[in-house]
Amino acid sequence: MLNSDPTDINGLLARLQTMLGPTGFLSGADTAGYTEDWRRLYQGVTKAVLRPANTADLAEVVRLCAAAGAKLIPQGGNTGMVGAAAPAADGSELVLSLGRLNHIRDIDAADMTMTVEAGVTLKAAQDAAEAAGCLLPLSISSEGTAQIGGVLSTNAGGNNTVRYGNARDLVLGLEVVLADGQVWNGLRRLRKDNTGYCLRQLFVGAEGTLGVITAAVLKLVPRPREIEVAFCAVASPAAALEVFGHLQARDPAAIQAFEYMSGAGMALVLKNIPDTALPLAIPAAHYVLIELATPRQNAGLRDLLEEVLAPAMEEEKVLDAVIATSEAQRRAIWKLREEHSEAQKREGASVKNDVSVPVSAVPTFLAQASAACTALIPGIRVVPFGHLGDGNIHFNLEQPIDMDGAAFLARDHEIMDTVNEVVRSLDGSFSAEHGVGRLKPYMMPQWRGGAELDIMQRIKQALDPLGMLSPGRVLP
Amino acid sequence: MLNSDPTDINGLLARLQTMLGPTGFLSGADTAGYTEDWRRLYQGVTKAVLRPANTADLAEVVRLCAAAGAKLIPQGGNTGMVGAAAPAADGSELVLSLGRLNHIRDIDAADMTMTVEAGVTLKAAQDAAEAAGCLLPLSISSEGTAQIGGVLSTNAGGNNTVRYGNARDLVLGLEVVLADGQVWNGLRRLRKDNTGYCLRQLFVGAEGTLGVITAAVLKLVPRPREIEVAFCAVASPAAALEVFGHLQARDPAAIQAFEYMSGAGMALVLKNIPDTALPLAIPAAHYVLIELATPRQNAGLRDLLEEVLAPAMEEEKVLDAVIATSEAQRRAIWKLREEHSEAQKREGASVKNDVSVPVSAVPTFLAQASAACTALIPGIRVVPFGHLGDGNIHFNLEQPIDMDGAAFLARDHEIMDTVNEVVRSLDGSFSAEHGVGRLKPYMMPQWRGGAELDIMQRIKQALDPLGMLSPGRVLP
Repeated sequence: MLNSDPTDINGLLARLQTMLGPTGFLSGADTAGYTEDWRRLYQGVTKAVLRPANTADLAEVVRLCAAAGAKLIPQGGNTGMVGAAAPAADGSELVLSLGRLNHIRDIDAADMTMTVEAGVTLKAAQDAAEAAGCLLPLSISSEGTAQIGGVLSTNAGGNNTVRYGNARDLVLGLEVVLADGQVWNGLRRLRKDNTGYCLRQLFVGAEGTLGVITAAVLKLVPRPREIEVAFCAVASPAAALEVFGHLQARDPAAIQAFEYMSGAGMALVLKNIPDTALPLAIPAAHYVLIELATPRQNAGLRDLLEEVLAPAMEEEKVLDAVIATSEAQRRAIWKLREEHSEAQKREGASVKNDVSVPVSAVPTFLAQASAACTALIPGIRVVPFGHLGDGNIHFNLEQPIDMDGAAFLARDHEIMDTVNEVVRSLDGSFSAEHGVGRLKPYMMPQWRGGAELDIMQRIKQALDPLGMLSPGRVLP
Repeated sequence: MLNSDPTDINGLLARLQTMLGPTGFLSGADTAGYTEDWRRLYQGVTKAVLRPANTADLAEVVRLCAAAGAKLIPQGGNTGMVGAAAPAADGSELVLSLGRLNHIRDIDAADMTMTVEAGVTLKAAQDAAEAAGCLLPLSISSEGTAQIGGVLSTNAGGNNTVRYGNARDLVLGLEVVLADGQVWNGLRRLRKDNTGYCLRQLFVGAEGTLGVITAAVLKLVPRPREIEVAFCAVASPAAALEVFGHLQARDPAAIQAFEYMSGAGMALVLKNIPDTALPLAIPAAHYVLIELATPRQNAGLRDLLEEVLAPAMEEEKVLDAVIATSEAQRRAIWKLREEHSEAQKREGASVKNDVSVPVSAVPTFLAQASAACTALIPGIRVVPFGHLGDGNIHFNLEQPIDMDGAAFLARDHEIMDTVNEVVRSLDGSFSAEHGVGRLKPYMMPQWRGGAELDIMQRIKQALDPLGMLSPGRVLP
């Protein structure tokens, strides 16, 4: 049926160019914006960026590439943290951009669902949900650029997973183009459906290695009517967890964020970021940011915060606390959390670890990992922060003040290994939110080896026997 | 390594008997309790029931059976609705009972997780969670007998999924014995973990065809402190959905059940079940049962109900309503819902459909399916009920009063096809809760055919190339 010679890459490109036209087929200098990952870890080269305008065209592109033995890298907003979406440096991979599949197909406020194509940005999807009177409860810092297809392929997390779960938890249905060009239309809007294997969760988080997500049905929730944000100095991470437990026991559905910051990290924010100020009288070694929100009217979230924080202050678990009384104050508090990465960047070289442990093990993890890193490199600055309510800590290490940045970074693997040894001893994960991509497949055998990696490889082989989709990503 | 001749079933049985001992190896008359499914649809025969006491022994059983070419049917409490757990009538399948893997390995109230073995009954797991001050938020009518392994393998639903999701949504980690006897230890207690494919959701709902679930980490939630139950006569299913929408917009996290019943079904309950009474003055054509619950103190759930129901009564969307004022009243209201199956059974022959559609499509579904069935068999009694908040209706049909029961049942496939035609036109599912099992694989090509069934078959082939686990279940 196909006339192309399997080894004739030029024939394939000519055919794709004819089929996709000038908007849908980019080559040469026009590929520049698609060949480097967001963190600039990988500088790639590609013969073409393919930008089909709809699912049928995308399926035809995949069929043609499969027949020609070409390799494809699906790419959304290209905001990933582990390099999955950048093509290889040897020019062997074509980029399959989802950006033109950017339609919101349906919003049903009664059903509380929306059907969106993969190339819609997360922000555009959020806005559409809001216009329909609903909330798409997923928020990440790259949401203005990140696209739904990538958000799902990486199972994005963010600040609100403590309440609503990861991207995975919001998916009711998917449309996926398989490696052989078949289209699976699984765009069902059902809350209950026990008819065979749960395929959608296989593609969510697979980082483009098993198929190309082209559209999804997402769950929506009611918009909150009341929001309260508190900022607390706490005696210890364990004390912070106690506060979390008290809130959970009283109103778990209202906890929209529960974020941890260290005194060291806060000091860097206050030093390096303009227009920031500690909203408390005295600095402390540990802080938490609590956001409560609910669609209930007159919910008394402020009373709830006071009811939980007051006895904790008497017990000296909470050393000081402030509850924002205006949107401006809320934003100022959130800024202290959100500028942590930038503040660290301005301070010099840093090594990042996006790890998770069971929630109850976070205090142990912080103590042991801090001690181990300090023993490894005296003077190292431990600046952990992140999603305490999920057990997900961005355990970042800043170079000693008097050390050369490059010399510090030269030891990055030693540092990561040191942190990860503690994570493993607590049955944690080396990648809580960011995924595996091209950066971390080498870690898979040690962490997910044996039966687990064997199953993953068999599934990869079953769904992509030619290894044409995102080769070298996720699996070693 | 193995000495057994691949065709020597007697050699295999002798070896298993030696290995498992008298408690772990049942044959002959001792297999009686394991060979028939709960609904008595399938009467099977087996050469042995294998009851290993732990995961290592179970893995060895699977290895030996794989080497000998024997087929295995994992079985939990044997309360399934579609015959998946009963062995075939030709004696070719051995039953692998999970009942002795009945330990609760861990409960962590700080983490809000529990680690349980597959053979623990759902009730025992609920009780253990309660003793730790938590709630395992899954409840089904068979919970005293159903075991966690089966509950997960069938992705059980129940009355509270509108709040907490299906069994699937409660699983953080799994331990699974694969078809080749490998043990996958994926018992992680992490809220965030993006390290490769989401394997756990592949085994949940696979009805034992891809591997044997031997243990799981389940999410727990805080126990509710306040519960309110209302019973309402409503003008129509659409009016019921409006009430649901108002509650969702105000306090979605409090809606613990939102159940629909028809006037026809209620009449059968009142007629056939002793000690039941309609708690309203005048019968109606449609009813809903609303249960609100929350861990909040002084949550004002009763006020919320009144705030939503009062205007709905003024608009004549709700015709009458009562809010229970005691535990006895709550139980009496729930009895009206729970006795629906029994009341129908006592009335004569009935045909059951466990279907789902998008929540907003339920009124259309009820109207169209009722009309189609009445056109097919005049005098047929349409008695739908179920989980309106999930779009999951048990659309049951009772024989006409003057018709012969056997003659009615002889037309069961015609009736089911008539209902399913409406379900399909609304993008629904032929099995919302009960699964596929042995009863419904023939429906898979028509409903889930093409790419979807192709992927499922490839995954089955990848994980169980010999087809030794639950053959003929789920996939046609």
